[in-house]
Amino acid sequence: MKVAWLVALVVVGASALAADAPPQTWRDVDANNLVLIDTHYGQVAVELAPEFAPHHAERLRALIRAHFYDGKSFYRVIDGFVAQGGIGEGDDKKLAKWPALKAEFDRPIGDDVAFTPLGSPDLYAPEVGHANGFPVGRDAKEGKVWIIHCPGTFAFARDNTADTAGTEFYIVIGEAPRRLDRNLTAFGRVISGMQYLQKLKRGDPDVNSGVIKPGPGRDPILRMRLAADLPAKLRPHFQVERTDSEAFAAAKQKRMNPGTSFLIRPPPPVLDVCVMPVSVRRVK
Amino acid sequence: MKVAWLVALVVVGASALAADAPPQTWRDVDANNLVLIDTHYGQVAVELAPEFAPHHAERLRALIRAHFYDGKSFYRVIDGFVAQGGIGEGDDKKLAKWPALKAEFDRPIGDDVAFTPLGSPDLYAPEVGHANGFPVGRDAKEGKVWIIHCPGTFAFARDNTADTAGTEFYIVIGEAPRRLDRNLTAFGRVISGMQYLQKLKRGDPDVNSGVIKPGPGRDPILRMRLAADLPAKLRPHFQVERTDSEAFAAAKQKRMNPGTSFLIRPPPPVLDVCVMPVSVRRVK
Repeated sequence: MKVAWLVALVVVGASALAADAPPQTWRDVDANNLVLIDTHYGQVAVELAPEFAPHHAERLRALIRAHFYDGKSFYRVIDGFVAQGGIGEGDDKKLAKWPALKAEFDRPIGDDVAFTPLGSPDLYAPEVGHANGFPVGRDAKEGKVWIIHCPGTFAFARDNTADTAGTEFYIVIGEAPRRLDRNLTAFGRVISGMQYLQKLKRGDPDVNSGVIKPGPGRDPILRMRLAADLPAKLRPHFQVERTDSEAFAAAKQKRMNPGTSFLIRPPPPVLDVCVMPVSVRRVK
Repeated sequence: MKVAWLVALVVVGASALAADAPPQTWRDVDANNLVLIDTHYGQVAVELAPEFAPHHAERLRALIRAHFYDGKSFYRVIDGFVAQGGIGEGDDKKLAKWPALKAEFDRPIGDDVAFTPLGSPDLYAPEVGHANGFPVGRDAKEGKVWIIHCPGTFAFARDNTADTAGTEFYIVIGEAPRRLDRNLTAFGRVISGMQYLQKLKRGDPDVNSGVIKPGPGRDPILRMRLAADLPAKLRPHFQVERTDSEAFAAAKQKRMNPGTSFLIRPPPPVLDVCVMPVSVRRVK
């Protein structure tokens, strides 16, 4: 009897391409787009995609530099859905400095966003794929592209109307809530540390929309920093797999047509865009 | 500024039907199908669906009654994928008593499985829906129905060939790995305590397929019991929403056509079967 059951499942994963597959290629994560969130459980790294929401990215950097989030909390954490952080309730005066932003739910298709189609249909969007490692939807007729809600997607929360996001953020921690696509401004994704977010204390979704009472039931945001602001010595350096590469194309094909002995019944040659891993490695 | 951002998202959830919606109806979870897994983080409750895999369900009950799992561990935990538990490596002699089972990957469509279609297309199966609260796929041409891999799905792991499952189990903790459908025997789902599984210590998926070295890096299975074997006083009593009810049909419609003011752009009228919540309540 083998030591590790289900081993072959992992071999189907992104990290183990066949020997004859093209090698993965990598791009560096820009320190200006790398957000580090310290929790009691470990550090979470988020890569921002400012090309999808320049004003939100700028706001987030400004908030981080003002140490706005330090000592705040993950005050609304719903298992299987989202972890939401920021100021939470009360203390509205602090928000006067940070007026609500105009929504950036999607953006025009353009040369600065290299869209690579997934090569598989999607339930929610005319077309899905990747742009620079980020999972995106695209509507060629409308001429729009947007970051979709997958596990790890980073977005700004808002009030009931469109242009009301200002400081609060959420990160998807459950099965992709795709109905939110183009309804909130998504402009980043977790590239490291999802397992620490999964440890966050949960709220009760049936009580006050999952908002946790202030106190020990909330996990704090110890601090939040932009990598660019750290001394070079302390700055982590991540690389993300290029999603416009031959290797990524091969990895998608392998997922859709695994042809392994483990999967006895070949799965349908389709792919949930949110299941397709985009590899990340920490170089330093 | 409102206290709870993103509040309306929750209102879209299953627990808050409009006042004029039909009331939810409930069925009791049979104590013979209720598995309780104690971890350091809390108790996880799994409901079994023996009609999908009678021999696996019988085996699991026998293993539990032999206290097979007590003191074993979650030895392969891959963030965003599965938490796998059981004996892990070594100690093969103990397995001689528990020979491998014949696979029960799917079963014939039959009167003992009340299939309710989701009413939305699916990427991986000709048809998906629910049977007694469990997310299922169905192929009317083949005359087969099966439990699909959603977050919380409980299944037996196996070796590389079909009929090799015996004692090891896994629970899906990430975006639905639907490619596994009908390739492993799935016969239950977590109805309570997913957040505790999310706290389990992770393995490194790039090292030994995510298997964690024996030692403190592994979280133990403190004990595993069948509710039916507990004294009546200590036996928890759960109820699961009836998925063949008018209320559930209305809740699905509401998800597909939320028509709330929060979702400014109406999402496409489709639904990921694994996103649709099936409510559970603990009565005692």
